[in-house]
Amino acid sequence: MKNNLQLTEDGRLKHLLSLDGLPARILTQILDTAASFVAVGEREVKSVPLLRGKAVFNIFFENSTRTRTTFEIAAKRLSADVVNLNINASSQSKGETLLDTVANLSAMHADMFVVRHAAAGAAHLIARHVAPHISVVNAGDGRCAHPTQGLLDMFTIRHFKGGFHNLRVAIVGDVLHSRVARSQIHGLTTLGCPEVRVIAPKTLLPRDVGNLGVHVYHNMEQGLKDVDVVMMLRLQNERMQGARLPSAGEFYKHWGLTTEKLRYAKPDAIVMHPGPMNRGVEIDSEVADGPQAVILAQVTFGIAVRMAVMSILAGN
Amino acid sequence: MKNNLQLTEDGRLKHLLSLDGLPARILTQILDTAASFVAVGEREVKSVPLLRGKAVFNIFFENSTRTRTTFEIAAKRLSADVVNLNINASSQSKGETLLDTVANLSAMHADMFVVRHAAAGAAHLIARHVAPHISVVNAGDGRCAHPTQGLLDMFTIRHFKGGFHNLRVAIVGDVLHSRVARSQIHGLTTLGCPEVRVIAPKTLLPRDVGNLGVHVYHNMEQGLKDVDVVMMLRLQNERMQGARLPSAGEFYKHWGLTTEKLRYAKPDAIVMHPGPMNRGVEIDSEVADGPQAVILAQVTFGIAVRMAVMSILAGN
Amino acid sequence: MKNNLQLTEDGRLKHLLSLDGLPARILTQILDTAASFVAVGEREVKSVPLLRGKAVFNIFFENSTRTRTTFEIAAKRLSADVVNLNINASSQSKGETLLDTVANLSAMHADMFVVRHAAAGAAHLIARHVAPHISVVNAGDGRCAHPTQGLLDMFTIRHFKGGFHNLRVAIVGDVLHSRVARSQIHGLTTLGCPEVRVIAPKTLLPRDVGNLGVHVYHNMEQGLKDVDVVMMLRLQNERMQGARLPSAGEFYKHWGLTTEKLRYAKPDAIVMHPGPMNRGVEIDSEVADGPQAVILAQVTFGIAVRMAVMSILAGN
Repeated sequence: MKNNLQLTEDGRLKHLLSLDGLPARILTQILDTAASFVAVGEREVKSVPLLRGKAVFNIFFENSTRTRTTFEIAAKRLSADVVNLNINASSQSKGETLLDTVANLSAMHADMFVVRHAAAGAAHLIARHVAPHISVVNAGDGRCAHPTQGLLDMFTIRHFKGGFHNLRVAIVGDVLHSRVARSQIHGLTTLGCPEVRVIAPKTLLPRDVGNLGVHVYHNMEQGLKDVDVVMMLRLQNERMQGARLPSAGEFYKHWGLTTEKLRYAKPDAIVMHPGPMNRGVEIDSEVADGPQAVILAQVTFGIAVRMAVMSILAGN
Repeated sequence: MKNNLQLTEDGRLKHLLSLDGLPARILTQILDTAASFVAVGEREVKSVPLLRGKAVFNIFFENSTRTRTTFEIAAKRLSADVVNLNINASSQSKGETLLDTVANLSAMHADMFVVRHAAAGAAHLIARHVAPHISVVNAGDGRCAHPTQGLLDMFTIRHFKGGFHNLRVAIVGDVLHSRVARSQIHGLTTLGCPEVRVIAPKTLLPRDVGNLGVHVYHNMEQGLKDVDVVMMLRLQNERMQGARLPSAGEFYKHWGLTTEKLRYAKPDAIVMHPGPMNRGVEIDSEVADGPQAVILAQVTFGIAVRMAVMSILAGN
Repeated sequence: MKNNLQLTEDGRLKHLLSLDGLPARILTQILDTAASFVAVGEREVKSVPLLRGKAVFNIFFENSTRTRTTFEIAAKRLSADVVNLNINASSQSKGETLLDTVANLSAMHADMFVVRHAAAGAAHLIARHVAPHISVVNAGDGRCAHPTQGLLDMFTIRHFKGGFHNLRVAIVGDVLHSRVARSQIHGLTTLGCPEVRVIAPKTLLPRDVGNLGVHVYHNMEQGLKDVDVVMMLRLQNERMQGARLPSAGEFYKHWGLTTEKLRYAKPDAIVMHPGPMNRGVEIDSEVADGPQAVILAQVTFGIAVRMAVMSILAGN
């Protein structure tokens, strides 16, 4: 069902809602297309006309300047017309339903919706109800999925490590409240990574972690041992109401990535973080700014990956 | 005077402030031009260069994501540079007067102002004071006028009914607080509609309703009988402070458009609504999503109508 | 040091942070380039392709619709892709540092940052940390500097008075809290204006006013005597916490520019104001709207000056 929603009958990408259910073939197509756009970012004139005359609506039911900006830049690089909508106080407060809002925006000649919503499944709901010519990109829904973040993580790993087939990857921190951890795990598994580890205290793991096909560690020394990639997660303070959590200082002591702990990993391991970072909580500044960090490369690659997704959805 | 303000000395459109005072010739010019843009919305590449190099300022003193978006899309389709300004907390809070704000924006090479303001007459006031090369479009001022909504309603009726000369049209609901009802009545009357009806409780009718040239009904069965077009109005909850109004449930029982009540109208009658809808208050979902509803077509036509207005004002 | 930060090793403009430290050669280059863009604003098609494919980020940590709009218009006239970011509640509230925010935005293929921040020195701090290919324009930081305002003032004086070498210029009002007065004084002094006066009550002068190379007056009659240019300052109510200030009425009586007081100046003196004006506080409406006022010309020239700065920074 999810599969059908994201793919056309002949197997092309129709919506990007979740990495879950996407075959390796599609993921690889996106990464390959993104690689061609990385060059665009370095050229003197950065625009390409692939979405000329198309209208991309950034529909943000939840504020996220950073994510909105990356999609806006990506769409403008493709020469699309971009309309930003922050829908909190406006139509929604006038009592209109989510689906009426979407139906109205669909009727405004939109070609693509980039949707951010606090509720899990919102992007799927919208994709099921938009006009047939419109594609939906999930820019984060609740704790559920944030597929372009997952894709840019895959792109970054492939860029620095050449592929996935011999890698040991550790995902560290607040898996429970993270909307990127699931995307990362699905992406890595699908692309052939043989060993995905999760390192976290028990209180920050989802109950179904056993079903995700990962190795679980509750200890940084054991979990980081000989890994090629360390993917740190942001400690989602604002989502953690009621969870039993140690203080930020306690968290840092046990789970914060320091130069010392990073030595357990392979010497050429790369360190990733989806941002924004809590320096001194989940990551030490020495690591964040150190030679193994590829955190800003992730941001740059994120533009290319979003350009690739939009370009593929638009049929190029 | 109003007439003079909207038209140049040789009778061309200079500002669009209100349908009141515009001759049938101008209304028809706008509808005909819009018809040519409906095709643009369906083309692969949707932009036309008619406003290339022109600067359109969307000046919203009152928040309205939906209306702002339709103007933004329309201007971008015409290749204009679009600047969005939400003026609540900024210059106004610094004590600057409305006219100083407008004089400043005029001095920034603007070509067109799209103005939304809570105060009736604000767009007229601005039009009287802008530099001679600038055109003003009223995007809603107080209860007074919302002319592009009225025009898109006229376009929709003409599209589905072929013209106005044999039509019976009913406008239903909160006429008192509606900024579109007056635009609709003026438009219909000017374009030759022989019978315009208003159906509403007495408490939701303006005192001067007798001067508007409409037939007043206080009963859905009689009012809807044999009409060709049903134009529902939104129940403006937020504007209704102090008015004697029944509960939403009572309102729905008497004035809400249900499949049963719609049977009083002609079998091929169309149902319109300016949005956003209060489902279960002024309109039942079965009607809103039913085969006679043309509510989303109104939204689509709204882009073409706004493109037409801007294009004509820019001298194309 | 400041000097180095703004200029490349071979003496070209790299960032625009403050007029302080910029040689007359650079100021004149900006004014000459702006003069060529004034014509662009009067052409039928107003865009030039000098920044085609470049991404300009308007990063506003402090709200200012007016200033943001002038930069947005200027960048769009140059065909840049413009991204507006209001950073209050978003990344900053998630605990990210200013420099992490900037590093992230830098990684998004930005070419230019236009920065507004409440803290003095913020633009300098950012300029010291951006990637080498990015230029920073200070759009106002604390009380410190607002160099494009200073430049448009210089442009306006040169336009109406032909040059600076024979001029007597008076700056009037709240020098202490003004972020433009310092830019004005530096600009005038560098461009060869022989006599710059400051007219203000003692409580609204900075302690170091003696070091600025200006003549200080505490009396409008003496201060305005025979000046060619009167530059009024906005009374920054919102910044004046705790300062000993007379009431607005008292201030107007002594320091407000009226037609009577303006007669002390030369008959062809021009009157300037950075806006937004407090009519009846620092300036009388008769003067603001009178024949000697060039206040709206300042706004128009401001677009051309910002186009010039961006164009020069982009290497054109």
